Amino acid sequence: MKRRRILVLGGVLAGPTAAARAREIDEHAHITLITREARVAYASTGITYHLSGEVGSLEALDRERAEFFESIYRIEVMTQTEAVALDAVRRTLEIRRHGASEILHYDALIYALGARSGPMPASIRGTNVNALRTLEDVAALTTALAAGPVRVAVVGAGMHGVAAVDGLVRAGAQVTLIERDAAILSQFGVQATRVAHEALAARAKVVTGAAVVDARTQDDRVTKLLLSNGAEIETDFVLLTAGVVPRTELLARAGAHLAPDGTVYVTDRAETSLANVYACGGCVSVPQALTGAHVFNAQGAVADKVAQVAGANAAGGNAKLLPIAGSMIRRVLDVVVARTGLTEKQARAVTGANFQMTTVHAPSHDAYFPGSALVLVQLFWDRSTGRVLGAEVAGPSGVDKRIDIVATAIEAGLTIEQLSAIDYAYAPPYGCQRDPVNVAATAAAAERAGLARFVTPEDLLRGGDDVQRIDVRPIEDHALRRIPRAQSIPLSTLRSRLSDLERARPVVLYCDTGRLGYLATRVLLQHGFADVANLEGGFRSWLLSGLDVEEGKS
Amino acid sequence: MKRRRILVLGGVLAGPTAAARAREIDEHAHITLITREARVAYASTGITYHLSGEVGSLEALDRERAEFFESIYRIEVMTQTEAVALDAVRRTLEIRRHGASEILHYDALIYALGARSGPMPASIRGTNVNALRTLEDVAALTTALAAGPVRVAVVGAGMHGVAAVDGLVRAGAQVTLIERDAAILSQFGVQATRVAHEALAARAKVVTGAAVVDARTQDDRVTKLLLSNGAEIETDFVLLTAGVVPRTELLARAGAHLAPDGTVYVTDRAETSLANVYACGGCVSVPQALTGAHVFNAQGAVADKVAQVAGANAAGGNAKLLPIAGSMIRRVLDVVVARTGLTEKQARAVTGANFQMTTVHAPSHDAYFPGSALVLVQLFWDRSTGRVLGAEVAGPSGVDKRIDIVATAIEAGLTIEQLSAIDYAYAPPYGCQRDPVNVAATAAAAERAGLARFVTPEDLLRGGDDVQRIDVRPIEDHALRRIPRAQSIPLSTLRSRLSDLERARPVVLYCDTGRLGYLATRVLLQHGFADVANLEGGFRSWLLSGLDVEEGKS
Repeated sequence: MKRRRILVLGGVLAGPTAAARAREIDEHAHITLITREARVAYASTGITYHLSGEVGSLEALDRERAEFFESIYRIEVMTQTEAVALDAVRRTLEIRRHGASEILHYDALIYALGARSGPMPASIRGTNVNALRTLEDVAALTTALAAGPVRVAVVGAGMHGVAAVDGLVRAGAQVTLIERDAAILSQFGVQATRVAHEALAARAKVVTGAAVVDARTQDDRVTKLLLSNGAEIETDFVLLTAGVVPRTELLARAGAHLAPDGTVYVTDRAETSLANVYACGGCVSVPQALTGAHVFNAQGAVADKVAQVAGANAAGGNAKLLPIAGSMIRRVLDVVVARTGLTEKQARAVTGANFQMTTVHAPSHDAYFPGSALVLVQLFWDRSTGRVLGAEVAGPSGVDKRIDIVATAIEAGLTIEQLSAIDYAYAPPYGCQRDPVNVAATAAAAERAGLARFVTPEDLLRGGDDVQRIDVRPIEDHALRRIPRAQSIPLSTLRSRLSDLERARPVVLYCDTGRLGYLATRVLLQHGFADVANLEGGFRSWLLSGLDVEEGKS
Repeated sequence: MKRRRILVLGGVLAGPTAAARAREIDEHAHITLITREARVAYASTGITYHLSGEVGSLEALDRERAEFFESIYRIEVMTQTEAVALDAVRRTLEIRRHGASEILHYDALIYALGARSGPMPASIRGTNVNALRTLEDVAALTTALAAGPVRVAVVGAGMHGVAAVDGLVRAGAQVTLIERDAAILSQFGVQATRVAHEALAARAKVVTGAAVVDARTQDDRVTKLLLSNGAEIETDFVLLTAGVVPRTELLARAGAHLAPDGTVYVTDRAETSLANVYACGGCVSVPQALTGAHVFNAQGAVADKVAQVAGANAAGGNAKLLPIAGSMIRRVLDVVVARTGLTEKQARAVTGANFQMTTVHAPSHDAYFPGSALVLVQLFWDRSTGRVLGAEVAGPSGVDKRIDIVATAIEAGLTIEQLSAIDYAYAPPYGCQRDPVNVAATAAAAERAGLARFVTPEDLLRGGDDVQRIDVRPIEDHALRRIPRAQSIPLSTLRSRLSDLERARPVVLYCDTGRLGYLATRVLLQHGFADVANLEGGFRSWLLSGLDVEEGKS
């Protein structure tokens, strides 16, 4: 029997994962892993944790060496080898190694070249400027950090930029984070973004809505960044974390179908449009759960899943990809932010008038047990079907668990009613009898059942002056800080003060988290008030929406 | 309109939860909460964490005081009130308070009297003996603990007994845990139980397979316990944690259908067989996910869910219970054990020949990030449908997240293939690109697809002498400790040593965790070996099964 010839292009994570899976399926295949780099695989996501000192050695990130791959998986490894041309008709790959060209034939090719950083602006070039993507990028920085206080400018506040700030601040650097957009973390909504923003601003300088327009250089090093808002940032290092370009040129030249963002479309079998060419890793677009639309998602968990499918199928298997949830999480100094499923924007686009969002703040675990903190949970869901579409979770702890529960629910097509009723494993250090996910889904189910109407802070603002804003929190809380124009009617007195309210005007009630505001809403509705709503997420969500507050004597 | 009259019998957790939900649904109902105790509600599950000192004040456990209930929920509260008789035909409840009887009429009654400790054996009575169930039980103990070293005998190693040991050891007590059965934690299988047992045995004395048969008493205090195995345990305190008796006498006398264990059956609307009588809390049997069979489950998360349904329906709502997963979790000193869904025994009973179990050990999060540890994940699943039926998870960290993911999967009816493919939110402090749940489900899917056969340690033992036991771990690990009669063929040399194996005899391969043993199994299968299997969970699962090992020179 002729041995199947499998070429795997690309190291780091996806390529090696695909190669290993191919070997599991086909022991006799001739498998070659080809990478431009000197190492076969390393944990690229660990880099920022090396900066922080939590991962002591770069060696610890160098996960599987070539010899391990060769001896355990019997995979031929070619490092420092460049792929030059792909001919999908003849099934050949031209490579260049040790200065010479070579043509390799294949039966199946797995393309996993990942992505590179976007082009550095010509004006921001220097030996102290990099993208913090490779082990080499990080080395110069750690040396400098070890020597004493260092000023670092991080340009771009996406997931990678924010992780970089987390690592750098922990390492003692003085960090300035610069984001062109009005807000950081574009994949997140207003409230989760604000949780992250506040955590960053407490320990670093955060500049939003300003682009880097020029730089001053000295001895081949950038010393100062000039921003579009006129600010000047003096710095010892510059990390350009914004912009990622998929390395799909080779596929493009071979005629593969690429998405507008330059990634390559793959089917649920991880196939490209070229016969016998599979793709995985940070250069592909994969079908998303709920919409089926192809999306670019550079998360490691997605890369792992697609790589397994690509490896199995390249080796003659018949594996299928589950549409991805698109889960992601980042530690941001003292808080954690995570999301899964559709973003608010995507969910709105898919569901139109049926779009619903529910926001709660609930304790990560029993409030009486040390370390408990309120966690923001937002669910996006479809009013017509009740199905959960997406979620954002943010807070000091317990964030990872809740987002993974919702990811499972989304992949399973669960409704908010189902999610409200699942019994999670409870003991005081780990959760509450009613988990934060239950709390959010229960609020959503109450809305769907018509038990109450919930409004967002933005809705309340849009309601204008006609809306009676009622603060049902204890009077001391109201006296300290409140929503402008809000009237204090503590919940314990509400039933005896119904005559203080005008029945002809709309009423919005709010408490601290949304929980007692819901009860207050039920009270008014059953006393004949027609236009009543609860401010979801309560005063906390008002604050996280960045809206004005009134303080002191009212 | 006549106001609905709702009586809620029972405080602590379920009763107050049901009462609050009833108020949300019906603002006008006359709701009365009746409890034997002096407090309305307290966090009974927090008691052992007060022992440990993590919950500083008992006041912190006293969650919602009567006045809060009255002012916010407008619920009439009767403390220190005993329910004497229920007449479901006349819809009346006889109560006794302040020494006098009273008859209350109801439209709906919510029965939530919970459970009491089993009867204390006559031979083990003293002022230093209690069940560690109430705030009063704990007070004497904490006073003694504060004064100096105390010896405590905990009788019964169920979930409550184990939690008590956790709290007591942390408080500095010298603890002896006594269990009548051969193993602790009867709801768990062999391996998770062993994880917990080892954690306990490292810091307390654990006696299994021995019952308390008698006690010596001095000055009305038990000073010594005599065990069926002849041992004598000197002690300052005795906690009898075994045995719980549902308080359903009142219901029984009123003619309600009780389960053989004394709990009351409730429908998915939380109804008992008596018209207008609902029940919730630690005295009910509820339908279980997957089987629909009624089970007794005293977990707080279940009590919360049933109470919400009981409260809503008693108030005229139409809420339905989702069949429960039956999730539970306990911290056991340095480890955590958790389970959800069907137990191994239940799953075997339901699926018969289609029963499958998969066992893996996978890192809680990236191994290079501090705090990472291997976690035991066991999945029970159905070979014919692929559906996940149950799971056990145990290890130092990351246990709660994984069990809750599987609980969601079980409630959703997900298959192992689906569970293997979900992308969870990944960053090094929280998980791996391939989550432990993915790892377990991927192994299960490989077995279901026929890619390899997996055997348990018990299967291997049953295989007898004919089975070739092949240790594919590095030779140094083999030299240190190994499965008896195992031959060392490190995976890196396996392909060149195929002739060392007899093709006519069965082969079982094992590595440390099961991961590389799977690859080794694939190698042999594809080299024409017919009877090959991987030891699932590898050498670690062998050890956790409590089986013999060979040490040193082979």
